[in-house]
Amino acid sequence: MKELTVDLGERSYPIYIGEGILDQIGGLFDKHGISKISPILLVTDSHVAEHHLAPIMGKLQESGYSVVSHIVAAGEKSKSLGVLEDIVTTALQAGLDRKSTVVALGGGVVGDLAGFVAASYMRGIRFVQIPTTILAHDSSVGGKVAVNHPLAKNIIGAFHQPEMVLYDTATLQSLPERIVREGLSEMIKHGLIWDAEFTQWMEDNAEKLIALDQEALQYGLYQGCRVKSIVVSQDEKENDLRAILNLGHTIGHALEAVANYNELHHGEAISIGMVGSAKLAMKLGYPEHIYTVTKRILQKFGLPTRIPAHLDTDAIMSAMMHDKKFKEGTMVFIIPTAIGKVEINKNVSTAWVRDVVEQLKQEA
Amino acid sequence: MKELTVDLGERSYPIYIGEGILDQIGGLFDKHGISKISPILLVTDSHVAEHHLAPIMGKLQESGYSVVSHIVAAGEKSKSLGVLEDIVTTALQAGLDRKSTVVALGGGVVGDLAGFVAASYMRGIRFVQIPTTILAHDSSVGGKVAVNHPLAKNIIGAFHQPEMVLYDTATLQSLPERIVREGLSEMIKHGLIWDAEFTQWMEDNAEKLIALDQEALQYGLYQGCRVKSIVVSQDEKENDLRAILNLGHTIGHALEAVANYNELHHGEAISIGMVGSAKLAMKLGYPEHIYTVTKRILQKFGLPTRIPAHLDTDAIMSAMMHDKKFKEGTMVFIIPTAIGKVEINKNVSTAWVRDVVEQLKQEA
Repeated sequence: MKELTVDLGERSYPIYIGEGILDQIGGLFDKHGISKISPILLVTDSHVAEHHLAPIMGKLQESGYSVVSHIVAAGEKSKSLGVLEDIVTTALQAGLDRKSTVVALGGGVVGDLAGFVAASYMRGIRFVQIPTTILAHDSSVGGKVAVNHPLAKNIIGAFHQPEMVLYDTATLQSLPERIVREGLSEMIKHGLIWDAEFTQWMEDNAEKLIALDQEALQYGLYQGCRVKSIVVSQDEKENDLRAILNLGHTIGHALEAVANYNELHHGEAISIGMVGSAKLAMKLGYPEHIYTVTKRILQKFGLPTRIPAHLDTDAIMSAMMHDKKFKEGTMVFIIPTAIGKVEINKNVSTAWVRDVVEQLKQEA
Repeated sequence: MKELTVDLGERSYPIYIGEGILDQIGGLFDKHGISKISPILLVTDSHVAEHHLAPIMGKLQESGYSVVSHIVAAGEKSKSLGVLEDIVTTALQAGLDRKSTVVALGGGVVGDLAGFVAASYMRGIRFVQIPTTILAHDSSVGGKVAVNHPLAKNIIGAFHQPEMVLYDTATLQSLPERIVREGLSEMIKHGLIWDAEFTQWMEDNAEKLIALDQEALQYGLYQGCRVKSIVVSQDEKENDLRAILNLGHTIGHALEAVANYNELHHGEAISIGMVGSAKLAMKLGYPEHIYTVTKRILQKFGLPTRIPAHLDTDAIMSAMMHDKKFKEGTMVFIIPTAIGKVEINKNVSTAWVRDVVEQLKQEA
């Protein structure tokens, strides 16, 4: 079992990564002082529940914990205030109190939703993350939790750090290949923003990672979480540095929205977005090499690098204008300045972005 | 203008108290660096809007601020996730960003609701409180914000400190007398838990306070806010000491609930609750004098000291059991041990509480 600490002073917490570590969940909960008197609320979705809910509830009950579960529909639609209210109903009926813990068992949707329940129930109770996708190695580190509003994603939320993250790589074995690839997209992003060596390692180990080779997977998740945790440690509340984690996300979020959140998965959209950022870097005078390498790696992972031609450029531009990363009207982009290095550029011209969006539709 | 600082390290903020200080709102916003570029969202209710919205919007616009307003229905029903979502719609449509400020103009309901919008919009933006009731001198200090769930009050919320509190005592002149009296109930509570001298002053100045004499009112609000801020400074997240602010609230909340939140106002319910706490104190061996003085002061302010006979004792007891102040099954009460002094007693027997509830129905 690998262990990594997210260093946030008194809010520091460990990420445990390993195959089959959920078998030890009772011991890990004991170690972290999770209350055996106050009920635990385990939140998961219908897909994950099928494979993992019963065994985990069983393990916890064997260890003397009192656990109730709440299963939400799989998919982004569950990240709503309505579903949050339903979960709080379960929490109240089960008698959750201030010493209770909310456990998120699932991908990013479940983590964000259950995390915001933990952040807001009785003004904040304890929270444990059990990610079951590769993509969630990103969202499970850093404490950003939220639900969506009909007009905007992740707009109602909090910063609420978990007590621990339990990453059991055995749970990843049942993931469909498309979900594996899109998860690896965030892992590539962590390399591109911070660590050239890790980026190279990813390119060299693409086949192993896609095939879910346990050793490669654990190393990759460890490194991805490590980069994320370094960045978050330096800027917990996203005042400056943390913005670099948005590489590829400004264009990516716009593409997801314009494609109605079904055609493109998050990891796929940011893959295209990262190519876009590399193209913007070229316009700003950074070497073409960044673009070439970025695109080559993403393609090696079978990730998309072009915008589907039927998505309307005006709609994409307009979706970007509503993206909350634009501070006080200034257009901000994360721009790669080398492999493993980025800058926060607050003066990227809208005309250039439009150019790049157009080019990305023609991209090979 | 009186000024008081709530001392919370980097989250410290001032409370300004004075007659007509809203005329200087533009200058105070400037002083605190409220953004003139990012829009301000002013949340208020239909009653308060009638008297105060237009002048305040006008003053802010004159000073160069961009302001939008959202008016909710007056009353506790507006403290819901549904109304929160509506306010966020307004915020998004107005283009509020991370440097925007939410202003709560109103009593406790508006403060709690708008405060939770500020706490959760984009994971937290700035917040200013403009309380327009006496009761709100309590809720506007300390950063506890929340909405209700159909099954429980204040169960979904956050700790989110304001940038400042602007207490313009001119806004209190239009309050109905019943609302004045119930507001003074929390002021009495602040005396009873912390300051015997202030308690005596309140008893001596009851008539002036009820008549909204400006000098007495400003002094009382200053002292009430001062006690609250001392307690909150020592225990921001309500881990221990802060619980003393709940004097009278365990019985009080239960009475409000059983009376369907319409027969008894909050300040009235805690008035009865404070008499109940003094009766429990007697059972625990503390002097009868505490009970006598507590009751005498509350009656001097025309506040109720007996439970309406038609409220069912079982229903009251059952409502108390669901009160979130019972940690892990233990029954916790704030018990006065002298005038101006209380203890947190974690071992109050349910049978004694039931006795006291029965007695409170017979109370003179």
